[in-house]
Amino acid sequence: MPVNIIILNCNTNSTLTEALRAIAAAAAGPHTEIVALTPPFGPESAEGYYESFISAAAMFAALEEHQEPFDAVVLAGFGEHGREGLRQRWAVPVVDITEAGPMFANLVAHRYGVVTTLSSTVPVIWESLRNAGLHTRCIGVEASEIAVSSIHADIAEVAAALETRARELITRGAEAIVLGCAGFAGLDAELSHRLGIPVIDGVPAAVRLAETLVGSGMKTSKAQAFQPVNPAKEWKGWPPVANPVA
Amino acid sequence: MPVNIIILNCNTNSTLTEALRAIAAAAAGPHTEIVALTPPFGPESAEGYYESFISAAAMFAALEEHQEPFDAVVLAGFGEHGREGLRQRWAVPVVDITEAGPMFANLVAHRYGVVTTLSSTVPVIWESLRNAGLHTRCIGVEASEIAVSSIHADIAEVAAALETRARELITRGAEAIVLGCAGFAGLDAELSHRLGIPVIDGVPAAVRLAETLVGSGMKTSKAQAFQPVNPAKEWKGWPPVANPVA
Amino acid sequence: MPVNIIILNCNTNSTLTEALRAIAAAAAGPHTEIVALTPPFGPESAEGYYESFISAAAMFAALEEHQEPFDAVVLAGFGEHGREGLRQRWAVPVVDITEAGPMFANLVAHRYGVVTTLSSTVPVIWESLRNAGLHTRCIGVEASEIAVSSIHADIAEVAAALETRARELITRGAEAIVLGCAGFAGLDAELSHRLGIPVIDGVPAAVRLAETLVGSGMKTSKAQAFQPVNPAKEWKGWPPVANPVA
Amino acid sequence: MPVNIIILNCNTNSTLTEALRAIAAAAAGPHTEIVALTPPFGPESAEGYYESFISAAAMFAALEEHQEPFDAVVLAGFGEHGREGLRQRWAVPVVDITEAGPMFANLVAHRYGVVTTLSSTVPVIWESLRNAGLHTRCIGVEASEIAVSSIHADIAEVAAALETRARELITRGAEAIVLGCAGFAGLDAELSHRLGIPVIDGVPAAVRLAETLVGSGMKTSKAQAFQPVNPAKEWKGWPPVANPVA
Amino acid sequence: MPVNIIILNCNTNSTLTEALRAIAAAAAGPHTEIVALTPPFGPESAEGYYESFISAAAMFAALEEHQEPFDAVVLAGFGEHGREGLRQRWAVPVVDITEAGPMFANLVAHRYGVVTTLSSTVPVIWESLRNAGLHTRCIGVEASEIAVSSIHADIAEVAAALETRARELITRGAEAIVLGCAGFAGLDAELSHRLGIPVIDGVPAAVRLAETLVGSGMKTSKAQAFQPVNPAKEWKGWPPVANPVA
Amino acid sequence: MPVNIIILNCNTNSTLTEALRAIAAAAAGPHTEIVALTPPFGPESAEGYYESFISAAAMFAALEEHQEPFDAVVLAGFGEHGREGLRQRWAVPVVDITEAGPMFANLVAHRYGVVTTLSSTVPVIWESLRNAGLHTRCIGVEASEIAVSSIHADIAEVAAALETRARELITRGAEAIVLGCAGFAGLDAELSHRLGIPVIDGVPAAVRLAETLVGSGMKTSKAQAFQPVNPAKEWKGWPPVANPVA
Repeated sequence: MPVNIIILNCNTNSTLTEALRAIAAAAAGPHTEIVALTPPFGPESAEGYYESFISAAAMFAALEEHQEPFDAVVLAGFGEHGREGLRQRWAVPVVDITEAGPMFANLVAHRYGVVTTLSSTVPVIWESLRNAGLHTRCIGVEASEIAVSSIHADIAEVAAALETRARELITRGAEAIVLGCAGFAGLDAELSHRLGIPVIDGVPAAVRLAETLVGSGMKTSKAQAFQPVNPAKEWKGWPPVANPVA
Repeated sequence: MPVNIIILNCNTNSTLTEALRAIAAAAAGPHTEIVALTPPFGPESAEGYYESFISAAAMFAALEEHQEPFDAVVLAGFGEHGREGLRQRWAVPVVDITEAGPMFANLVAHRYGVVTTLSSTVPVIWESLRNAGLHTRCIGVEASEIAVSSIHADIAEVAAALETRARELITRGAEAIVLGCAGFAGLDAELSHRLGIPVIDGVPAAVRLAETLVGSGMKTSKAQAFQPVNPAKEWKGWPPVANPVA
Repeated sequence: MPVNIIILNCNTNSTLTEALRAIAAAAAGPHTEIVALTPPFGPESAEGYYESFISAAAMFAALEEHQEPFDAVVLAGFGEHGREGLRQRWAVPVVDITEAGPMFANLVAHRYGVVTTLSSTVPVIWESLRNAGLHTRCIGVEASEIAVSSIHADIAEVAAALETRARELITRGAEAIVLGCAGFAGLDAELSHRLGIPVIDGVPAAVRLAETLVGSGMKTSKAQAFQPVNPAKEWKGWPPVANPVA
Repeated sequence: MPVNIIILNCNTNSTLTEALRAIAAAAAGPHTEIVALTPPFGPESAEGYYESFISAAAMFAALEEHQEPFDAVVLAGFGEHGREGLRQRWAVPVVDITEAGPMFANLVAHRYGVVTTLSSTVPVIWESLRNAGLHTRCIGVEASEIAVSSIHADIAEVAAALETRARELITRGAEAIVLGCAGFAGLDAELSHRLGIPVIDGVPAAVRLAETLVGSGMKTSKAQAFQPVNPAKEWKGWPPVANPVA
Repeated sequence: MPVNIIILNCNTNSTLTEALRAIAAAAAGPHTEIVALTPPFGPESAEGYYESFISAAAMFAALEEHQEPFDAVVLAGFGEHGREGLRQRWAVPVVDITEAGPMFANLVAHRYGVVTTLSSTVPVIWESLRNAGLHTRCIGVEASEIAVSSIHADIAEVAAALETRARELITRGAEAIVLGCAGFAGLDAELSHRLGIPVIDGVPAAVRLAETLVGSGMKTSKAQAFQPVNPAKEWKGWPPVANPVA
Repeated sequence: MPVNIIILNCNTNSTLTEALRAIAAAAAGPHTEIVALTPPFGPESAEGYYESFISAAAMFAALEEHQEPFDAVVLAGFGEHGREGLRQRWAVPVVDITEAGPMFANLVAHRYGVVTTLSSTVPVIWESLRNAGLHTRCIGVEASEIAVSSIHADIAEVAAALETRARELITRGAEAIVLGCAGFAGLDAELSHRLGIPVIDGVPAAVRLAETLVGSGMKTSKAQAFQPVNPAKEWKGWPPVANPVA
């Protein structure tokens, strides 16, 4: 029986959506089908609090509009908001790449570090790690000051910048590195080779964890925090539609 | 020179918006003008992760559409998401009632407790307090299991339920009580009378803190976490508009 | 290519070793081969600090004596010591059931609780969770006061005792339950049915995580904490042999 | 109706007492009357544990001797002891500048730093922040090694030293700076101009918070921690008088 | 060579001073001489923040006036302020009974609890434990609501009240009990007999630790936090004298 | 009545065992008899997780085989595992040098640092300090990268390396230094002289604490964590014997 996994891109860059789909499909097992969704509105990249909160609602809107059944959801935005809302609204397992990368790291290293894009994302990532209970073994989150939009401009430069930040984290005690942006996908092998320690891309890790949870028959608990949304509640204009003049 | 303060209701219940405006105006000084905004889309009440993330984006949308200048913003949703996004996007002071209530409590008591609506909001409130650094003196967040929509149905019953939860918190060491829902506004005096300790409504507290910050000439720091959103970034359909068929 | 996973029983009860092997094999994929090892010395069950430290060394001894190659190790003792030693000594991924159960729980619930055997194991479990960075979302570890040796005497009584403790944890906020003893294996489905929330047995969860890590090509980092043991160091009588007169 | 606020200088330097009164008066509203008190005994500046504990009792003695009614108290010693004792002994709101500065900072920045006088005050400040629950967003407390007594000798040198320490804190992530000594009053505007981020003097902030609390009708909770001092208790020689031969 | 140890009573009850001297002398070695001091001013018992801060300064004053040399100081007030000030002002070892009791408990039990007098002392004790870094293994501080002044009125009633509170702490996991008031001295043996676990009186424990530190040649570090008080600083009326009309 | 104290060397280097015995005897009182034990199997030094877990079981085995009565046990391995197991298995007081050093440091300094051997021991030491509740005042654990086996090769070089690391810790705020290896014994006086602050060797400190506990009549609590090991439990080959061919 095939497993259907949704990959939620947190931003409106559909080229990245397709790249995430390809990476997920490469990591997935032979019986897994991957669908990647682009939010109906929002920024081309989420790099801080303002954009991240908008992305959360936009990913919800994308999933509300999706008509096909699915078995699990992967939130492909490192540090982005929305994880717990997905868990409350839907019953299938939800795996955030912000969880999958650090969980893998914790299983193969004593302490890990995160390398990310802009410094505006650092506090957002820390809060996500802390809310997930994954902060106590994280030694640091370092920004490369490379914007998401420029990642594909010069991949060698990106790799070099991440390597520099990773080496700083290693000096402070990091034994594994987690890539702190879905857009860094594909750089894990090269950086691991250069650094000599595990470097983890959360996207394939999350896809594999999602398959594992589905294979184990797990569903999200509907007690307390993720209790079902009251179906009788009145809503106004939800999900919204993209502003035609924006 | 008049001070213009925006009150952001986190839900789409315009009756509550007007009630919040009235409470804010009553607390404000003679030279303060209050404008209360209702989000363009979302639930009639935000009572958990899913609704709260949507409210964050919807409040941003409401403020983006607001054309008049303003000097400060009060986020009138206890525990709701979005606070840090408002601080990043705008430069004027932003005061969250989730901060104002506990700050007042910390100034007049050693430890405080929060009474709120449904149990689905409890983890959301704890995360907001922790992200604000206001959790270490909070002794508990107790749900009355009264939905926001039924608050005005029988105010005596609401007061009785909150009193019961507050007394539990007092037994555990609470010395002041913070009302954990913007919709509880107006119950502070009655509950304080019954309990014999300070009971704090965050809405007037936030309005007064906002006035104080404006009077002190404070602006939100634009370094690091709240650095300005990149003006060159491409956006799709933002702010969105209410779905005409939803 | 087959994947070879070692299951380390932490005690010298070989009947439990065989039971663990069967549970692991049932959870494993079609290309995984499971070998279960019994330590050469130690107690028939590890239920507290003294026995747990002995178990750690005894499991090391068992693995040192094992001649066949393997791709991953599962430590099948909930809360038992030794995890980090296995990671330092060998390069293949090591998954502790004390990690696997809580990680699954964190992916499907906001907060979880653990039900275990004797009260003497509770502080050992808390330290293991804290060292693994998995304590912040754990709401409690409750002892049923059922010794490991009596688990199979009356399985209905065991299930009833665990249900009672689980319900206490749910009252305090637990949304998923982790079985805190490898010997509870097989009770997850029944308890989940009774409680209406996810109940997780760490043994199959750990096997699946081990397969996932092997499939992802992960190896334990050899930097810092898990740097290779100095091969030139002089050892005395290691690994020891069972005392013929004990 | 006029509001009477007492400013408690923590040391016996009456020139500083007058300076604090002037700063407070400048910050206060038109209907607020400020009285500044100098303790009857103690050091000319409080710069560490020994002096700080003495200052606490000396401020209590000053307030015990004060005959006029008052509506609020401002404790004008950054990090100095005594705050909770004032709250227990009197019922009017007490605002410590060690609270007011960081609260303002937390409302306009994600993380803040403190610049202070001697390194002997640093642990005292950290303990005060932690006891107040204001430590989690404080990124550092840095000593300029300028003694309180030399602050007014060369104000340009003081500003330069504080700027250096502030820049170190900014490098580590501070987005706002709190002045960690009542004697630094008046340097906030200059430093904010140089650094480009909010710089907060706790004295005017505390005065404004005190006015806000009084305006809100707040009183200190008399439950538990701040329950009234037993009036039947026997005291010896309290409040003491200055030693005529010391 | 005899060792001279000062016992500082934190209150002005000279009967208690003599009782403390006797208990200390009974615990001390044959070559130790004990001198007990009563503060020159302050309350007959310190039971909360206000009285505790006054006691700190009053103990300092008592020691300033003491003319004989001494080798160590024991602060005999459980949870009372002043410890770090004594360490800064003098170079000899200072042992607080709030440290000695919990240190002994931590050496013979996994977790401990504290039984004390009034609820107003509970937050003061917690802050002292936290500042000393001794809070993480403390499971609770329970008030018997017996005032210090009534301890000697009916010792059997006191023992019964403490036993009740101690049993509550044991239920919550305490494995040893620390007596949280210097006035409880002498009840340790009786309570330990009743409860079947270690019950520790901090006064003899502190005396023995002080002897041990003196025997080891230890002196208080004069770096940073406890750097010497500036001898050039100007003081006013310190130490003060008891108010002749109070 | 003489006091018999067992010193447990954590490794199989019998020369170090004898050195520890001599240091302990020099610190002990005239009526104390010291016996030092070498484990029957294990590494010549314990420098990381793998070796440390083996040492724990090997020390247990050594003590199980010891036939003479004893009054207290000193665990002479800094950061090594096993402490809580000793406390559970035996009733006499157990003092770990990892506790004794930091406790002395906390009594004479506000914050301390630890200097140790290899970086592989650093996480083991941190976990031991945290489990003991002694981490909150520890400012850092710094590795000199000197292996235990080379300590005695060039003692001047060892002292120089430790001094360098200690000075780094002092810069970060350490006011006392704890020697983080039993093999550093004897370097405390020299380093204290060079650094001008207390430098503490845990071995004599632990011996003196053990004498103090015995003199106070303390026994380990047998409630909960350290409840007696079940005497009816079946064991296999315990304690093991050294492998004759290893």
